[in-house]
Amino acid sequence: MTDDRVKLAHGAGGPAMRALIRGVLLEGETHAETLAMDDGAAVPFGDRWLVFSSDAHVVQPIFFPGGDIGRLSVSGVVNDLAMMGACDILGLASNVVLEEGFSLDSLRTIQSSVRATCTEAGTRILTGDTKVMRRGEVDGIVLSTAGVGITDRVVRNAGLRPGDAIVVTGTVGDHGLAVLSARNNLGLRGDLRSDVAPLNGLVRAALAVASDAVHAMKDPTRGGVTGALVEMAEKAGVTVVLEEASIPVSHAARAAAEVLGIDPLLVANEGKALLAVARDRVEVVLDALHAHPLGHQAACIGRVVENTGSGAVLLETGFGTRRLLERDSDPLPRIC
Amino acid sequence: MTDDRVKLAHGAGGPAMRALIRGVLLEGETHAETLAMDDGAAVPFGDRWLVFSSDAHVVQPIFFPGGDIGRLSVSGVVNDLAMMGACDILGLASNVVLEEGFSLDSLRTIQSSVRATCTEAGTRILTGDTKVMRRGEVDGIVLSTAGVGITDRVVRNAGLRPGDAIVVTGTVGDHGLAVLSARNNLGLRGDLRSDVAPLNGLVRAALAVASDAVHAMKDPTRGGVTGALVEMAEKAGVTVVLEEASIPVSHAARAAAEVLGIDPLLVANEGKALLAVARDRVEVVLDALHAHPLGHQAACIGRVVENTGSGAVLLETGFGTRRLLERDSDPLPRIC
Repeated sequence: MTDDRVKLAHGAGGPAMRALIRGVLLEGETHAETLAMDDGAAVPFGDRWLVFSSDAHVVQPIFFPGGDIGRLSVSGVVNDLAMMGACDILGLASNVVLEEGFSLDSLRTIQSSVRATCTEAGTRILTGDTKVMRRGEVDGIVLSTAGVGITDRVVRNAGLRPGDAIVVTGTVGDHGLAVLSARNNLGLRGDLRSDVAPLNGLVRAALAVASDAVHAMKDPTRGGVTGALVEMAEKAGVTVVLEEASIPVSHAARAAAEVLGIDPLLVANEGKALLAVARDRVEVVLDALHAHPLGHQAACIGRVVENTGSGAVLLETGFGTRRLLERDSDPLPRIC
Repeated sequence: MTDDRVKLAHGAGGPAMRALIRGVLLEGETHAETLAMDDGAAVPFGDRWLVFSSDAHVVQPIFFPGGDIGRLSVSGVVNDLAMMGACDILGLASNVVLEEGFSLDSLRTIQSSVRATCTEAGTRILTGDTKVMRRGEVDGIVLSTAGVGITDRVVRNAGLRPGDAIVVTGTVGDHGLAVLSARNNLGLRGDLRSDVAPLNGLVRAALAVASDAVHAMKDPTRGGVTGALVEMAEKAGVTVVLEEASIPVSHAARAAAEVLGIDPLLVANEGKALLAVARDRVEVVLDALHAHPLGHQAACIGRVVENTGSGAVLLETGFGTRRLLERDSDPLPRIC
């Protein structure tokens, strides 16, 4: 494949994808909202902000332990909005692209999951579009979802400040490892399940106790915790130092990661958030997270320090410190 | 293929698609906005309305005379918003699903077209998502776009009233016939080009002179003028009577329609609107449309009468009257 062709890495959530977005998709764009490249866009609206985001989902398999493409499509966009502080979701739009011959029973199951997840997130599908392609022109189903939310204060993923604590709302790596295990029929024992869930309720709980103290948020989807933190650190011009021992990873995810030879910090999560929180408010935020069903295992996993490199993320392993690098080659296509 | 599978007709914009949406995609939904099944959804917001819409585009070929999938993706969603009266577009979200190996040059051309069309519509892409699938998992590119607009007054496609004039903003059938001609390499002479264009400026001009007199709008995309008017007439419980001689069809489109054996009233338009206008204001509206570059050939093509059947659309041919029926079998997949 020559360099003038789309590569799988262009969809991996790392530097190749950002280069494609900046160099091709946004070529010539100058408006600040887009170049901020948050998980969504915020538009001033009266004295509040309208937040707008969208995600296309192509996960394979479409049904996996812990979820399906329907739950993923709603959670993906709800979480993008929540990461910008917009926990009140006005509504979603769902575009469904189907392959001729796709099972209507599967479609019913997926839509039932879409509705249940919308209910969980306190929102609903307001509009959509349906297209059918011939057999072989698309593999099964692509769900593309957009959402609109509203907030008084926009949280940017670049808002980290030296001194902040880095909080993760639970165990990491579950989604990506569950999907890869299902795809490869690993038949692992244990309860490895995707964490896919809408996080607006959890984030609302955190912001309710310490809104101004939450300086930045991002959900670690493609590229995992490493990818999300590298992007946040680069944009903020700070260094993030993580303590490996404090990062929650489930036994099942750890086992799958070893079998698959994949770092849990590099795979997608779909029901977790990373928060940069003012140091003196982190206990209050953790208490609020722990009180929510989706935040029981929230933990402080690191801190933000003055920049000593270009957006470095360092991992203290107990035996030393190593720099975490985004994955760019070896992408994991169709993980979400 | 058995009945429990997705068929091409499910994407054709006619009764099979509406049955799929009502029976599967919206099963169990009860909220009025969705069941109204307009081109988008309207949410009350302060003393105005937020209008939200989305479209997935899978057109094949992706470059066709008069446009490309990029121009189509922006026009599609802008037009959905404009049809509901929301001519001020706050912004768009663009989800790009790419096949590994897709030409980056083609992608650049498409994005350049996206930007140019946004400029034409006075809006911009605010956010998006990029996914890459392996070769053979998707055919080239799928562009899924959502948009948010704002309006003081929502226009519903079901608002037709007996006595209204039916106005079309220009020639019909150009988009579908241009795409089919390109796909089949017909090499027709003449200037058959897609009409794909963002209509919010044109609609704004019409609403500016006679806002309250525009009772209903819809853009005749999949299913064509016939499909759009049957849906509007059914929802409003009225009959629409068209005069065949007054319906503008270009020479090139008429020639292609004859070669392809397709009724121009049954194929997609992507730069036209149908308006139901109070009879005493139709001249004012036509004047406003004629003064706009996209409305030179706007014409009054029919009238709304009391219901004499169940949402019938009748065509007066000069030799008699026949009832127009939506196409359901023989779909034209990937026309938009």
